[in-house]
Amino acid sequence: MLRIGFDIGGTNIDVGAVDEQNRIVARRKQPFPKGRPYTETVKIMEDLVYELLQETGSTTDDLASIGIGIPGSINVSKGTVISAHNLGFYDVPMRAAVGERFPATPVFLDNDANTATLAEFRMGALRGCRTGVLLTLGTGVGGGLILCGEVFEGGLGHGVELGHMCIDRQGPLCTCGNRGCVETLCSATWLEEQGKKALSESPSSMIGSLARGQMDRVDGKVVIDAAKTGDPTAMDIFDRYVDQLSTALSSYAVLLDPEVMVLGGGVSHAGEFLLEPLRQRVKEKSFFHYTHKIVAAEMGNDAGIIGAALLR
Amino acid sequence: MLRIGFDIGGTNIDVGAVDEQNRIVARRKQPFPKGRPYTETVKIMEDLVYELLQETGSTTDDLASIGIGIPGSINVSKGTVISAHNLGFYDVPMRAAVGERFPATPVFLDNDANTATLAEFRMGALRGCRTGVLLTLGTGVGGGLILCGEVFEGGLGHGVELGHMCIDRQGPLCTCGNRGCVETLCSATWLEEQGKKALSESPSSMIGSLARGQMDRVDGKVVIDAAKTGDPTAMDIFDRYVDQLSTALSSYAVLLDPEVMVLGGGVSHAGEFLLEPLRQRVKEKSFFHYTHKIVAAEMGNDAGIIGAALLR
Repeated sequence: MLRIGFDIGGTNIDVGAVDEQNRIVARRKQPFPKGRPYTETVKIMEDLVYELLQETGSTTDDLASIGIGIPGSINVSKGTVISAHNLGFYDVPMRAAVGERFPATPVFLDNDANTATLAEFRMGALRGCRTGVLLTLGTGVGGGLILCGEVFEGGLGHGVELGHMCIDRQGPLCTCGNRGCVETLCSATWLEEQGKKALSESPSSMIGSLARGQMDRVDGKVVIDAAKTGDPTAMDIFDRYVDQLSTALSSYAVLLDPEVMVLGGGVSHAGEFLLEPLRQRVKEKSFFHYTHKIVAAEMGNDAGIIGAALLR
Repeated sequence: MLRIGFDIGGTNIDVGAVDEQNRIVARRKQPFPKGRPYTETVKIMEDLVYELLQETGSTTDDLASIGIGIPGSINVSKGTVISAHNLGFYDVPMRAAVGERFPATPVFLDNDANTATLAEFRMGALRGCRTGVLLTLGTGVGGGLILCGEVFEGGLGHGVELGHMCIDRQGPLCTCGNRGCVETLCSATWLEEQGKKALSESPSSMIGSLARGQMDRVDGKVVIDAAKTGDPTAMDIFDRYVDQLSTALSSYAVLLDPEVMVLGGGVSHAGEFLLEPLRQRVKEKSFFHYTHKIVAAEMGNDAGIIGAALLR
């Protein structure tokens, strides 16, 4: 039996066929049809499923489930997308629309943060925990919670928004309307903005060398790589980043006393260069003054597909 | 059958005998023996239990349980106090010490925030919820969480420290070593300090009248009462307080999407004068922009005794 996992983003539709050992045995990627009615997305999804079936020599009889991860607010029980800004989806009956094309196959829908959390929980760094935090540090900051040994969908089903906890009430304005959200101070975007500012102020820094003097080559990774070389400007930015992120993690820590906090997303590829000072700073700031377990995510870019395929 | 609930604080030992309908049928209060070995506290507790038994015409055979709420870190499974600053208790085997005096009676020990949460959960404003928050706004700020329909003891058993989530990373230094904790900006102590500052700067304000010009009569209640009269100085302080508290509640809201958030402690007696603007501000700040249910605690000062008696 195969399970299909869709990881739908504003740029691409990623999909994989996953076997009973949760390995991706076939995959496809298609551009997301921006600005078109959702029915067009559903048609592309249908075609992709048939391509995967053909490649794996399977038929719809071999399909155990189709899971769909969407970046937005989802009503899990109704199987609808309440709103997904980046996709232009509002009140979309996604599960029903896909279900019509595959009437014999159960279809599941969830937020992409929850599918990533599910993948880490079943196969990755959250495996075996009853209380855990996944924080994904990318363009934005998202994540999920494991509470009582399950992916937590929010008390009222709205999901959780770890990136919109406030850590600096007088801090920068967030897209959500609040100030100083974790997302404004702990995203890769923050690193990128600070890197660009530094490049314009001191063009001779290592950030400039690594970006070959080009503003549009500066991103979070460039700043981190420059900091790794010991460049003082980049180290200063990175140090502030670690400090901000440690405030966020110590807040999750005092609220939930988690067994493990897992960092995913682009910034987490900094590895121990990030994790080591972070553990120290979280220990200092957390009320428990405990060495909280903080580790990198294990599932990488496949978390979206595998997590969606794991939906039941 | 009777259950005994102890609410032990740095000033008093409060205790009640609770019947099968969770009503307090007899109660006692004794000063806490400050600076004395814990064995002295245990002796007082023993005497108090016998007084309550006598008053209710009962014997130790009628005792279903003895529950003890302690303001500090508790190892619930071992029944020990890890540390309770205000009591001067460190590594105290409280359950064993009380159990020795009442060998036929089960003894339970927990943090006082958890006993208060349990009381609201079983009998008060958290009744029937699966995901809820209790925040007690007093000299400090504490509270508890209901997760998955149970009082949450923390993922590693350290408990939860809602008052030590950070909402202002550049804010005032907290006793815990971190900056801008909820406790530094949302406690009654914050209101009192701002009230005192206002009194020294503008002695003619309503704060001054209500405190009869005496600095040591200024407390959180005086500031709130002055704000209720429309005094501009007090209204300004109260407005800042509401703003700070709304940041804290919107952070809990985006993390847990709770069915209900309950406010206890002295400040909560401000009632709708506090709750109404707070609901509006939390709605504006929360990512969900949802009218979160925010209500006052129902159990009042008895929450400690009843919650301790409810421990199993």
